[in-house]
Amino acid sequence: MVNKELNVFNQIAKALFTDEKENPISEIIPPNELAARLSIELNEEAIPDGVFEKALKEIILKTPKTSSKLFFNQLFGGRQPKAVLGELLSVLLNNSMYTYKVAGPQVGVEKEIIKKSCELIEYGDNYGGTFAAGGSMSNFMAMLMARDRADKSAIAKGVTKPLIAYTSTDSHYSVPKNAAFAGIGRDNVRYIPTDENGQMIPNALKQAVEKDLAAGKQPFFINATAGTTVLGAFDPIPAIADIAETYQLWLHVDGAYCGSVIFSEKYRHLIKEVNRADSFNYNAHKMLGVPLSCSVLLVKNKANLYKSFAKEAAYLYQTDHAFDEFNLGKTSMQCGRRNDALKLWTLWKSIGRKGLGEIVNQQFYLADVARDYLRANREKYNLYSFEDSISICFNYKGVDAKELCTRLYEQNALLVGFGSFKGDTFVRFVTINANNSKKEILHFFKVLEKEAEKLLSEKVIAYAN
Amino acid sequence: MVNKELNVFNQIAKALFTDEKENPISEIIPPNELAARLSIELNEEAIPDGVFEKALKEIILKTPKTSSKLFFNQLFGGRQPKAVLGELLSVLLNNSMYTYKVAGPQVGVEKEIIKKSCELIEYGDNYGGTFAAGGSMSNFMAMLMARDRADKSAIAKGVTKPLIAYTSTDSHYSVPKNAAFAGIGRDNVRYIPTDENGQMIPNALKQAVEKDLAAGKQPFFINATAGTTVLGAFDPIPAIADIAETYQLWLHVDGAYCGSVIFSEKYRHLIKEVNRADSFNYNAHKMLGVPLSCSVLLVKNKANLYKSFAKEAAYLYQTDHAFDEFNLGKTSMQCGRRNDALKLWTLWKSIGRKGLGEIVNQQFYLADVARDYLRANREKYNLYSFEDSISICFNYKGVDAKELCTRLYEQNALLVGFGSFKGDTFVRFVTINANNSKKEILHFFKVLEKEAEKLLSEKVIAYAN
Repeated sequence: MVNKELNVFNQIAKALFTDEKENPISEIIPPNELAARLSIELNEEAIPDGVFEKALKEIILKTPKTSSKLFFNQLFGGRQPKAVLGELLSVLLNNSMYTYKVAGPQVGVEKEIIKKSCELIEYGDNYGGTFAAGGSMSNFMAMLMARDRADKSAIAKGVTKPLIAYTSTDSHYSVPKNAAFAGIGRDNVRYIPTDENGQMIPNALKQAVEKDLAAGKQPFFINATAGTTVLGAFDPIPAIADIAETYQLWLHVDGAYCGSVIFSEKYRHLIKEVNRADSFNYNAHKMLGVPLSCSVLLVKNKANLYKSFAKEAAYLYQTDHAFDEFNLGKTSMQCGRRNDALKLWTLWKSIGRKGLGEIVNQQFYLADVARDYLRANREKYNLYSFEDSISICFNYKGVDAKELCTRLYEQNALLVGFGSFKGDTFVRFVTINANNSKKEILHFFKVLEKEAEKLLSEKVIAYAN
Repeated sequence: MVNKELNVFNQIAKALFTDEKENPISEIIPPNELAARLSIELNEEAIPDGVFEKALKEIILKTPKTSSKLFFNQLFGGRQPKAVLGELLSVLLNNSMYTYKVAGPQVGVEKEIIKKSCELIEYGDNYGGTFAAGGSMSNFMAMLMARDRADKSAIAKGVTKPLIAYTSTDSHYSVPKNAAFAGIGRDNVRYIPTDENGQMIPNALKQAVEKDLAAGKQPFFINATAGTTVLGAFDPIPAIADIAETYQLWLHVDGAYCGSVIFSEKYRHLIKEVNRADSFNYNAHKMLGVPLSCSVLLVKNKANLYKSFAKEAAYLYQTDHAFDEFNLGKTSMQCGRRNDALKLWTLWKSIGRKGLGEIVNQQFYLADVARDYLRANREKYNLYSFEDSISICFNYKGVDAKELCTRLYEQNALLVGFGSFKGDTFVRFVTINANNSKKEILHFFKVLEKEAEKLLSEKVIAYAN
């Protein structure tokens, strides 16, 4: 890379940082107006650098700002500077993580994260792990390992048994998607009901397993969730682990959203006994504010990773045979794989495990601020969520959540989404951006209330007419 | 991100660029010495920024340099500055590509690449596409679409039929890996022999299909390769497409390595009639010098993408229903997905399709330079590869290729790998870094010859003793 492009990068980066403060919400461009309003078109000929840079800058500044103080739409938001530093450097290094020959010390970086993460969850000596392309793919890898343990001939011969997977009604939609990918089928996923806090009901799980066994099916996999997508609920791992052990089922804990509580002494208890799970994942690009993607998959027994994912390839694995565990391609789903480890390492290295814990704690603190505000204003709000969740679910009385979220989006006011649980639909406000303080949380409500009040008054007018 | 970390990034980036020139090969650190020689360890406590930055810089400079003029080890190498610019900016933007609400104009960027790529291969009006996490995953998505077309109940009920896939003996090892993931089984992949140029023999394919049909099996998928991993050979698409059409099999063309020839008027003929394939992929992180990963998967009929990958998720798809094709999560394997499109867009936008073609042409030119050199020095070399390939396979007479490559690696001389074909093992020299000129190609041979001669003389001495 020449210094010229680095200069352009710095200029646009600074313009972006300034714009994030001054215009935290980028004006929406309707999809059908994109072509007319931005120079996105690709052509045959080269264009002068000045023209190119102008087009690029416009597109950058019109892109939704996921790090601004008004972005609460997803289970990620904000950026940790030290993590961004690592990611920018990994772009320049451009190593592929399959072999030690090509990734060198970056292999050590990835292995150190896996080792220390496994220590935090007390996974013992046979631990292993890898980085998947995202939480869905971490869940998929877990399901494949479970399948291959339950059906010994699946790798060679394909799926032959009627395998059944279990997950809660509030779990992530990747579970049935993955069941289709794995040749198991979406109909062979059982959705276990949840209690009033959105947690899987262990007794219902047990009954479902026994029913399938009685019908001659083969249960093989339980997906428990640490941080459900809508409510941010934590399934009760100890009771679920009892069932997994009784029936010898693979237990995976999908901590894509909130598994990073392992870093917090205060909130680690929410995934108590996670060491009884066969696999566990956390997405550092969610709670830890690391750039996308950074999904860490941990397994209690690394032999399962090798069994499902290793495949010899003479053209690839040519050196360092004495240290074959440093050839990471043998435990990953992909072949070429970008370096998703360095950005988490730079953050962890600089602020320590305790600093990661503080990032997590800050999110729960902000969630408490939000819940306190909602309770203090109960004449205006219905609160649906409970303690120990960073998804604050609520409704502004008299205003439909879908309508309100869409309005906020279309008015370029703020970005937030809605969710449903047991028949209620509500705003889902996620306090995952740890760069925020109490001020931004209160500002969120102020912006929301303004639009909600407008919607209410429009209705009154419509009704009066 | 604060400007402080941006400054640190700029400092380390400049140190890296300087070091790449002065020390194009980073000194190898044996895996078991990593912990002692670099400060990789992660700890409980934060550390001062100065200590952190020193540790980070050391690790960066000790990492194998994939963009230097002595890196020829993989099917990628070098960096295109305009592509790096796009990737660095996408890190700061940190959009996830599933919805228009969160990715906005970046959705337009991705769709424009897919549209123009499909135009280049004449895919007609029903085209579709997505970005996968890498070439293996592009191949996997193609196999899943093929499976779900051949076995209509697979998504819901799981795999029930004895499906058979076909690929050449010289194709990528992801094909059997993916067959296992998909519930089809590695044993249900047939390896079709290749001719003396490493190209799949269509008649052998036809015979294999007919044999399976006669045995009551169900052929469903042919994987043809545009650029085999070792030789860089191109399977004959027209003859293979005839067979696919006759037996109604899904034809996927795996162009991960060399599919980017679509951008070159001069070399596009190597994938003649690729529009007859149901799916096709190219990895822009290989031939086009875009940072990892940038794997573009194109499909002739987008309905197949929707069928195999769409899954409603009320919590996610909340807006822009009138423009649902802008909610890209419905055609991707993952849920959250990083922006792999902008980096290819910045390159293409600035240098045009013609500029991309020139990058491709430069690689073939460098390959010609290498072959010319080998032919001019035939007293020292055996040449195995043929025209129209950027993998130059050769042996230094009397020197074992494995031994030579390992020696070059261990002596920190240069990074290159070996490969095998029909019983011969040879050095595989890949001229994929288009930033190189004739000078670097000749320098490669000079460095290699020095070590080869040393190895030869050591053998003479050993023999004499």
